[in-house]
Amino acid sequence: MKTIKLRLGPRSYDILVGRRIISSLGIYLKRLNLGQDALIISNSTIFKLYGNLLSRVLKKEGFTLKFALVPDTEKSKSLKTAYSVIKKISLFDRKKRVFVIAFGGGVIGDLSGFVASVYKRGVPYIQIPTTLLAQVDSSIGGKTGVDLDQGKNLLGAFYQPRLVLSDVDLIRSLKMRQMRSALAEIIKYSLIKDARLFGYLENNYRNLIRCDRRALELVIARCSQIKAKVVGEDEREKKGIRTILNFGHTLGHAIETAGGYHLYNHGEGVSLGMLLACDISLRLKLIRDDKVRRIEKLIRQTGLPTKIRKVSVERIIKSHYRDKKFIGARNRFVLIRDIGKVTIRENIPLKVIKDALNGRLSG
Amino acid sequence: MKTIKLRLGPRSYDILVGRRIISSLGIYLKRLNLGQDALIISNSTIFKLYGNLLSRVLKKEGFTLKFALVPDTEKSKSLKTAYSVIKKISLFDRKKRVFVIAFGGGVIGDLSGFVASVYKRGVPYIQIPTTLLAQVDSSIGGKTGVDLDQGKNLLGAFYQPRLVLSDVDLIRSLKMRQMRSALAEIIKYSLIKDARLFGYLENNYRNLIRCDRRALELVIARCSQIKAKVVGEDEREKKGIRTILNFGHTLGHAIETAGGYHLYNHGEGVSLGMLLACDISLRLKLIRDDKVRRIEKLIRQTGLPTKIRKVSVERIIKSHYRDKKFIGARNRFVLIRDIGKVTIRENIPLKVIKDALNGRLSG
Repeated sequence: MKTIKLRLGPRSYDILVGRRIISSLGIYLKRLNLGQDALIISNSTIFKLYGNLLSRVLKKEGFTLKFALVPDTEKSKSLKTAYSVIKKISLFDRKKRVFVIAFGGGVIGDLSGFVASVYKRGVPYIQIPTTLLAQVDSSIGGKTGVDLDQGKNLLGAFYQPRLVLSDVDLIRSLKMRQMRSALAEIIKYSLIKDARLFGYLENNYRNLIRCDRRALELVIARCSQIKAKVVGEDEREKKGIRTILNFGHTLGHAIETAGGYHLYNHGEGVSLGMLLACDISLRLKLIRDDKVRRIEKLIRQTGLPTKIRKVSVERIIKSHYRDKKFIGARNRFVLIRDIGKVTIRENIPLKVIKDALNGRLSG
Repeated sequence: MKTIKLRLGPRSYDILVGRRIISSLGIYLKRLNLGQDALIISNSTIFKLYGNLLSRVLKKEGFTLKFALVPDTEKSKSLKTAYSVIKKISLFDRKKRVFVIAFGGGVIGDLSGFVASVYKRGVPYIQIPTTLLAQVDSSIGGKTGVDLDQGKNLLGAFYQPRLVLSDVDLIRSLKMRQMRSALAEIIKYSLIKDARLFGYLENNYRNLIRCDRRALELVIARCSQIKAKVVGEDEREKKGIRTILNFGHTLGHAIETAGGYHLYNHGEGVSLGMLLACDISLRLKLIRDDKVRRIEKLIRQTGLPTKIRKVSVERIIKSHYRDKKFIGARNRFVLIRDIGKVTIRENIPLKVIKDALNGRLSG
């Protein structure tokens, strides 16, 4: 097992990455002294697979627990679901010292963090992510949120968990498309911070896709380290450091949105977004052509898209200008200088963005 | 004008107390650099009285603004109202740099702080309290919240404003009962921290009740200083320092609840709660009898209740044990040693509490 520290003064916490480590959860929790009453937020899919295991592990150490199950869909990231979960907590919360366990993927994690942040001005919570994407990304860093009709993550808080426990053995053989989506984020970490990880991915992407546990453990630990360091330096995205985690996300989100969230999932949007950031960087002479081709090759090999289909440049641009990352009238991009090295630029001319998009259109 | 600093490192802010200082609001806001777009949360009563004034003051300095008016009732402290306000913000929030102004009493302040804390993981907000109670208490310290059916303030956050502007001239001749309710909190500040203020109140309570502006300004500034110091030392009520602000509130809340929130308002509950804390302290030989009689005299003179009517001891005890301030099975009280000096005690025997309650029953 690897222990990674996310350093944020009194709000520091550990990220544990390993195999079958969930069996020791009770012991870790006791050390943290969060109370005896755990409200576990999860969905029925995860509950069927691991509900008994988690109950056993916690009861063994004397915890009382209650499950709050929400539907296994993106729509659970809503104020309505949050409210229903909060009602459950308030009924369970008899001895006045409850804590929350997020047990599931990114939707569960974001929802649980939000609920924990607002209930009684904040109760502790821990993250037990059960998908590769949540383990490398959303479970770490304290960004919580629910969606409104008016936009994604419009409600939320920066609210750090007290522990992240990433048990590699909880990752089920995902659908191939989800696995690839997580790979896009992993490639992102290598591109922003770690050329060695990029080399490892070039040699091992096949092992990751077929869920090789050793390869997964190594990659999850490394990505967690990178994210922990970045968040530790710029928790609230105020210093332009955490911003680099958005590499590929600016136009990636716009493509996801323009495709109505079904043509492209998050990882597919991000892989196209990363390539577009490469293209823009190339046009601005920030990066060498052969580097971009190497990046494109890895993305293609993993089965992630490298060309935009079925969405027009106009729609992407329109979604892009609605993005909440816009500050005032300026745009802002994370661009790339080399594998493992990114840079933030503002006021990229619209023509350069459009040219990049047109260059990525299929056919 | 008096400027009081609430020191919380990067989250420090000023509390301005004075007369007609709202006319300079635009200038203070410009210095804070919170953006150009102000969403003002208020109610129609306040809007009719001061809406034009506030608009003029802000527009003069180039701010754009939008009012979100909520009903002038306790019920506006709800998730439903919060959601309706958030929708308004998301529609107004075009240039992506909106901030919130809470313009009203305690309900407006708590609701606005909550909304600002959750919208897009937190936007800045400022407090312009328009009641005496909000000026001396709820506008300061960052406790935000909305009520659920399951309990008061069950949802909320610790989220500090960027400025508190207490303009004494915004306080309208309140109904006498509300004025007295605020006086109970003011007496509380003197009892926990400031024997000199207590002496001032003994000599000047009549001036305060008839809304003498000079007396009000002095008292608001002093209470703000006390609260700012306490919150600066223990923002999240973790060190047993902020706890002293709950003097009189433990049994006070229980009496309010037991009376169904109409027999006793907040200040009336608190005045009875303070007297009960005095009685318990007396029974535990913490304070001298003549001090308690002096406290009781001031409370009686201001017209606040000193006897419990129409609520049974059993109901008060029952509400008390449901209070969220309970930690585990222990009770916890702020007791008093002298005027200006309090102490925190746990595990007060139920018999002592009951005896104190019985001693305060009317007739």
